[in-house]
Amino acid sequence: MARRTGRRPGNPDTREAILAAAREAFAERGFDAASIRGIATSAGVDPALVHHYFGTKEQLFRACMDFPIDPSTVLPQVLDGGMDGIGERLVRMFLSVWDSPAGAAGVALMRSALSNEWTARLLREFVTTQMLRYVLPKLSVEPGEARLRASLVASQMAGLAMVRYVLKLEPLASAPPDVVISAIAPTIQRYVAGPLQA
Amino acid sequence: MARRTGRRPGNPDTREAILAAAREAFAERGFDAASIRGIATSAGVDPALVHHYFGTKEQLFRACMDFPIDPSTVLPQVLDGGMDGIGERLVRMFLSVWDSPAGAAGVALMRSALSNEWTARLLREFVTTQMLRYVLPKLSVEPGEARLRASLVASQMAGLAMVRYVLKLEPLASAPPDVVISAIAPTIQRYVAGPLQA
Repeated sequence: MARRTGRRPGNPDTREAILAAAREAFAERGFDAASIRGIATSAGVDPALVHHYFGTKEQLFRACMDFPIDPSTVLPQVLDGGMDGIGERLVRMFLSVWDSPAGAAGVALMRSALSNEWTARLLREFVTTQMLRYVLPKLSVEPGEARLRASLVASQMAGLAMVRYVLKLEPLASAPPDVVISAIAPTIQRYVAGPLQA
Repeated sequence: MARRTGRRPGNPDTREAILAAAREAFAERGFDAASIRGIATSAGVDPALVHHYFGTKEQLFRACMDFPIDPSTVLPQVLDGGMDGIGERLVRMFLSVWDSPAGAAGVALMRSALSNEWTARLLREFVTTQMLRYVLPKLSVEPGEARLRASLVASQMAGLAMVRYVLKLEPLASAPPDVVISAIAPTIQRYVAGPLQA
């Protein structure tokens, strides 16, 4: 898949060596323990080159995943506005990304993430450190429940992606966004802010 | 993966040839248009041998998918009892299968189904003809909404499988069944029987 980092591509072999080393480091040691220096050493390049090609450690992780959106740009649009209507804003944003050309990258990412334990670990680490770490402190919910709520939201959104874009099960595959939003936003709203006990 | 059909295994090459021909027929032509005779011809064997190894066309399809449960045994447990509590019964049954040793086969099935368009089509055809065709007429819902409701249920259940068993995102990955049931059963109940408009 094409890499889009907004920088000049550089030597493709060097870039791929850095990405391969970074994927291994993020999956094996986790985002926090992985270092640009260690990744550079594994790839046999100077750390400055890693920064030059990929920017920050966050940007490098995103490039590793071919992640089609920048969470730090998109998530504030969902979170700003508080808890009221957060379910609807999340589902609407999600559909706008997946229904766009970026959706094809999302399908590829999901396929790759599910192909084995190693790639699943990489996606889990990405969701945890690049999305949930940013989102959880901003939710006005009981701290002890925040991670359960987030993983429930992840379950519905991952399943929506799978059924609508990967399996293409009708009629959800072709339903207009407003039909999907009406049906699924209340689920997300309850997972984020409503009662989790029957 | 081991095949469990309750029949003697026969010649492994012949069995594999039949399964390969059946997978192609079910994915290309669909369950209804695929025939045991056509599958036998593609595999270069006598139709009687297909029946001998795999039983009915439904059983052959299930063997193709390595599907870990028999929908015709499990689904009545969810549907009997009517619409009241159907969400809780579905989530409870789902967890009892996926938390059991059969769950590993479920993970393998999901990985394989997502690996490319062809295998996704096979799973979509299986869900549509082996599960929804049985379930939809038994639901007391407006017929025009039944398929949308079913695909919404599929989206939450597929996402639960993905987050709990494939990605293993905590705390949903390790949450006790009753916590998962309390949180997700109301979603399923609404998708099956509640209002879909905000």
